Amino acid sequence: MRDAYHEELDSIGDSLVEMARLVGSAVGRATTAMLDADLKLAESVIAADEKVDDIQRDLETRAIQLLARQQPVATDLRIVVTSLRMSADLERSGDLAQHVAKVARLRFPESAVPQDLQATLLEMGQLAQRLMAKAAEVIVTKDVDLAMQLEQDDDAMDLLHRTLFQHLMDDRWKHGIETAVDVTLLGRYYERFADHAVSVARRVVYLVTGDYADEIDPAAAAAGAADAATGGTPGSTGTPGGTGSTGTPGSTGSGDDAGEGTAAGESR
Amino acid sequence: MRDAYHEELDSIGDSLVEMARLVGSAVGRATTAMLDADLKLAESVIAADEKVDDIQRDLETRAIQLLARQQPVATDLRIVVTSLRMSADLERSGDLAQHVAKVARLRFPESAVPQDLQATLLEMGQLAQRLMAKAAEVIVTKDVDLAMQLEQDDDAMDLLHRTLFQHLMDDRWKHGIETAVDVTLLGRYYERFADHAVSVARRVVYLVTGDYADEIDPAAAAAGAADAATGGTPGSTGTPGGTGSTGTPGSTGSGDDAGEGTAAGESR
Repeated sequence: MRDAYHEELDSIGDSLVEMARLVGSAVGRATTAMLDADLKLAESVIAADEKVDDIQRDLETRAIQLLARQQPVATDLRIVVTSLRMSADLERSGDLAQHVAKVARLRFPESAVPQDLQATLLEMGQLAQRLMAKAAEVIVTKDVDLAMQLEQDDDAMDLLHRTLFQHLMDDRWKHGIETAVDVTLLGRYYERFADHAVSVARRVVYLVTGDYADEIDPAAAAAGAADAATGGTPGSTGTPGGTGSTGTPGSTGSGDDAGEGTAAGESR
Repeated sequence: MRDAYHEELDSIGDSLVEMARLVGSAVGRATTAMLDADLKLAESVIAADEKVDDIQRDLETRAIQLLARQQPVATDLRIVVTSLRMSADLERSGDLAQHVAKVARLRFPESAVPQDLQATLLEMGQLAQRLMAKAAEVIVTKDVDLAMQLEQDDDAMDLLHRTLFQHLMDDRWKHGIETAVDVTLLGRYYERFADHAVSVARRVVYLVTGDYADEIDPAAAAAGAADAATGGTPGSTGTPGGTGSTGTPGSTGSGDDAGEGTAAGESR
């Protein structure tokens, strides 16, 4: 019975990795479709999101069945609940990639993005895809150091978002309101996509170290990783879910705030 | 033991209602702060979001403890898992209200919204607040008819969002790029806020009827309500979480698509 249980748990992990792979690919292809004004590619990204939704539905069904049948406690329970949350992050990331593709479709045969912003948006799209590839790798490897890299990548995304807004707010902006609206929304989609990738990585760190800090504390994370490597009980270095902890799964607040308060907020 | 269990379940429900009450109030006050350029009010909304985050953290801790200690199955298990999802919707709604307040703060002492758009944004803010008040009532009453009203309110929100974009895209737009960017983001915040309120209501319908349709089927919902009223087993009229069902908790996709594809998309 325990074996079937862990097989099922593994298969939930596999589904998460598959979702991350699909949405990472989707955001890359959506970016290409947007820059090249490739309608066919945009349509294919829009259609492909259904596959991500299907996997999420299936994953949720299996996770809830697992809870009902196997009644996991402690670490196993945390893994299942956290997997449900990660699947919600990934499903939402798929929606955001789809939104980028919809902007591409809407502006066809033009590109939604003027020439002087193509490089910035290409960089945002590539960074989004890399973030999701790393998130997938973090799910597989439980590598806390790699998870911390995502925080830095997210800072880079915030910087790109800020650059985008500087272009928008420049008095020399000559692309009109429609393009300004498109670029505003595209910037927001990439920023939110990155937030969800970071959130996935943080949830893995939470499982490994028991800590879900809004900004991962490198010392604590390293201690947790060492703990895990030496076979220590996951969670022993933190207070998982405790009300006194500095953060908790489900709260992507601060990451989002950074984008809001700077790129789309104070600094523009 | 069972009594303590149901008390704990009730207290989780109370926390959800409290969260909905707080974020409903927050979006109303944020709207006032934005329209009146009231910095003090904006600051208070921004600060108050921490309370919502605290309640969510506490709720999550209690829900996971409940799963671990009481090992609920069937309907009880679905209630706990669905409560976790509702709390994520409500926490995110709080973030969005906070974002509106941040735009107000950013533009102080000016109002972020030009005179000719104030009525539309006031309506969006009021509708958002009403949607959340209804969502709270749906949590308390499990009223499926009321839950269906939220779908109509969401359609009204989409219409307002479209109106906003028509203003933006009008050749006579004279408020410049910065205001266009603000209005684009504000519109998106209200639209997403409404999506989360609708999502909360849909999750309650899912608990009552076993169906989580992207668009609630009135006949099925009525059947489910009648079923519930006559003491039928919740879930007996549908396939909760089944892969063959038309929708599933966690997927707010179609609601969002409507906003994306019309107001911010095809129709503009």
